[in-house]
Amino acid sequence: MDLTDLFSDDYFMKMALQEAEKAMEEGEIPVGAIVICNNKVIGKGYNQTERLCDVTAHAEMIAITAASNFLANKYLNECTIYITLEPCAMCAGALKWSQISRVVFGASDPKHGFTTSQTNLLHPKTKVSSGILATPCETLIKDFFLKLRE
Amino acid sequence: MDLTDLFSDDYFMKMALQEAEKAMEEGEIPVGAIVICNNKVIGKGYNQTERLCDVTAHAEMIAITAASNFLANKYLNECTIYITLEPCAMCAGALKWSQISRVVFGASDPKHGFTTSQTNLLHPKTKVSSGILATPCETLIKDFFLKLRE
Repeated sequence: MDLTDLFSDDYFMKMALQEAEKAMEEGEIPVGAIVICNNKVIGKGYNQTERLCDVTAHAEMIAITAASNFLANKYLNECTIYITLEPCAMCAGALKWSQISRVVFGASDPKHGFTTSQTNLLHPKTKVSSGILATPCETLIKDFFLKLRE
Repeated sequence: MDLTDLFSDDYFMKMALQEAEKAMEEGEIPVGAIVICNNKVIGKGYNQTERLCDVTAHAEMIAITAASNFLANKYLNECTIYITLEPCAMCAGALKWSQISRVVFGASDPKHGFTTSQTNLLHPKTKVSSGILATPCETLIKDFFLKLRE
């Protein structure tokens, strides 16, 4: 295995999934995010809207704030964010302001995701990849709602 | 003067302008926001993106978080937000999640405002009013950029 394999999209998405699992354990809708710069994690977060009683406490928002804090730079134009779920309009808007280089997400969100209902919510220079580890990313959220309905 | 005059949109927008002036004093792009519930201020904020080195630290985001904290409720469906500038997609997205009852803004933002470039960024039940004290709201921002260019 060379370094290209080590630092693959799957590798980083698994780390985002670990964050999502923390949300799951706390009874939050399980979404996780990590921000990577030069193959290093510089920010991470998981959905905490219930615990913090705050609709802005999405995984991505927390990870963006943490990454900017780490870099002492509000621009993340050398960074990639891995998110287990497609970002909503709010998070896409935040990612646009951050001028992040690349957005990678796992599961799609046809109801709230920015790609289906909106256009131009990301910075024009930002690249987007989707479907990375889509199945485990989706399964975690489906499991959450299944448990909720039990 | 009866209470209807006292608690007018102009009255609350002036309070939002006071928040914007705090941003101005700190060298931030001067935008201010307040959240009102039953004619009481329950959250306020001004743009702190530079100071906090965080693109998510818009006036509205700070005011939403403060209001939810005050109410111990992430939903603001009995509240009105007054903002000196039209919200961007990120802030509109946050306002949508909050299910806020009413959004009132002063100056329009043709470049980043949610009304021009996007659709359906607010909750379907949310009412929108614009142009409240538009001139002082605009002037403050124009003055900021004029000073910046001096």
